[in-house]
Amino acid sequence: MFVLGVDAGGTSTRAAISTADGRCRGVGRAGSGNPTASGAVPASDAVFVAVRQAVASAGVALHEVAVIVIAMAGHDAHDGIAAALTQRLASHGFRGVLDVESDLLAMYLSGTVAPVGYAVVCGTGASAVRVQGGRIVAVCDGLGWLLGDRGSGFWIGRSAALAVADQLDGVGPVTALTGLVLHATGVQHDPAARTGEGRPAVLQDLLRALYARRSLQLAEFAPLVFDAADAQDPVACAILQAAGEHLTQTFAQVLTLPGPVVAGGSILSRSGVPRNMLRARVDALAGSGALLLVDSGVAGATVLALRAAGVGVDEPMLARLRAGISSG
Amino acid sequence: MFVLGVDAGGTSTRAAISTADGRCRGVGRAGSGNPTASGAVPASDAVFVAVRQAVASAGVALHEVAVIVIAMAGHDAHDGIAAALTQRLASHGFRGVLDVESDLLAMYLSGTVAPVGYAVVCGTGASAVRVQGGRIVAVCDGLGWLLGDRGSGFWIGRSAALAVADQLDGVGPVTALTGLVLHATGVQHDPAARTGEGRPAVLQDLLRALYARRSLQLAEFAPLVFDAADAQDPVACAILQAAGEHLTQTFAQVLTLPGPVVAGGSILSRSGVPRNMLRARVDALAGSGALLLVDSGVAGATVLALRAAGVGVDEPMLARLRAGISSG
Repeated sequence: MFVLGVDAGGTSTRAAISTADGRCRGVGRAGSGNPTASGAVPASDAVFVAVRQAVASAGVALHEVAVIVIAMAGHDAHDGIAAALTQRLASHGFRGVLDVESDLLAMYLSGTVAPVGYAVVCGTGASAVRVQGGRIVAVCDGLGWLLGDRGSGFWIGRSAALAVADQLDGVGPVTALTGLVLHATGVQHDPAARTGEGRPAVLQDLLRALYARRSLQLAEFAPLVFDAADAQDPVACAILQAAGEHLTQTFAQVLTLPGPVVAGGSILSRSGVPRNMLRARVDALAGSGALLLVDSGVAGATVLALRAAGVGVDEPMLARLRAGISSG
Repeated sequence: MFVLGVDAGGTSTRAAISTADGRCRGVGRAGSGNPTASGAVPASDAVFVAVRQAVASAGVALHEVAVIVIAMAGHDAHDGIAAALTQRLASHGFRGVLDVESDLLAMYLSGTVAPVGYAVVCGTGASAVRVQGGRIVAVCDGLGWLLGDRGSGFWIGRSAALAVADQLDGVGPVTALTGLVLHATGVQHDPAARTGEGRPAVLQDLLRALYARRSLQLAEFAPLVFDAADAQDPVACAILQAAGEHLTQTFAQVLTLPGPVVAGGSILSRSGVPRNMLRARVDALAGSGALLLVDSGVAGATVLALRAAGVGVDEPMLARLRAGISSG
């Protein structure tokens, strides 16, 4: 008997196949598996590719897989995807059960199987959850880029774009972000050129370039803010400081009982101010232990699949699973 | 000799045809004429329809029109549209000159022909300009919904959506906006229904409805905020207060010399806190006179067309033009 866990993320999809005793036998990888980010069909295709890769690399047939759990943002909305994928995998021999679960719960379970604890996930989006009895019982933020996700990669990238616009417009301080953002968007900077309204032409060119892209792409500037902060740019440092404050506030909203705190997502996987601030907040809590860093929800999705197959998972088994996935 | 002014706005396009002495002979109207909001072809079609309506209602032939000025947001970028429209109108007899000009300058000139003064325009977007020598010499904000437009209709509508999300999530005060926004988006409110993560199902349904729409559509909630504020809802009042503060700050950024202040756009055309705050700021300025309210840039576009035809426009002529457009 085998089980499969899939982390269908906004940038990539990862799958892992495990034995009933938590030994990873193979992994798979594909592009964005998030239906909201990339559409239902490409997302479903990505999950399918990652699953097939994982079983192929393990030398296992799909009929030997008892349970597949797909961790996905907005999972409540994706019954249709579960049904479509079950059917598609069935035509390749799958006879088991396929469930869609919360990506946040999978992220938590990648770090710990403790029945009570927290996950703070900050990638393109940002949210914090409290887990009790092995299920999510409270969520803060995760409202998406348009309405929330304060402190997220999108939020950081948008703050960078604002700082650049302010400098170009002569109303904000000079920042290293300007050169980095203009370079990343391919906008030429001719300091003398002005529009008919007396504004710098480069500002208009930048606005045009940014509005021509998908709004979420502002998140691509987040790594530039880390780079500029590493070089002590005060504007970049202030943005990361504010992001860290938002994140710790989001975490504080779900905090009640002591418990382990799992941190995941591209912003928290990078060393820097947001993670340091969250770590300091966690260190100040009695009985919570250190911040547990995880790089994806694939181990947690596999834990959920094991549990659905009736297998209890303890911390040593989770550690073995995680080690197997990393080396797979 | 006739001239034509066109205000190609994000929600509607208005055209007016005038004699050389500022008598409006006919008007035209069509849908969105903003290429950024609705695409180059529909925008160009809307301008074409409004122009043809105006000349038809005046009983004038296009070859009698010497100048057409089209006022348009982001006008620096629309040389292609000017060329395409000139060609299209030429095939219907137009032999004159067609220019694309700033919608903000046209809004200003709808209110006054004073060589020095200000326009504060707050509709879906928000910006303030200083005019000197009849041209725009300074602009503040107008950075668009994603990066700025603080205090705008979009900003107000987004603030309403945030307040509703906070109430539904149990982290914000109860507000009349919740019922209004849920009704406007067609989302049913079952207070007992919860998602798998313990969140109210109505919040998830609302988020799904909002993210399925174009982001700019959040501006459609702005009138609901005025309605709720009229009924003394404290959350709605606070949103309009903050919007008014942003707008007066935007205005203050371009303020130097005394001069008349023209106010336009859907948010400032409605009586309420933002307009009252801007009016109070203007009243406090020595020598600026009262706030001049205008309902569109069509009169100002016609002033620009008259000027391009070599006609000087004074305040009585502008007043006559405006009166003719209103009654047309």
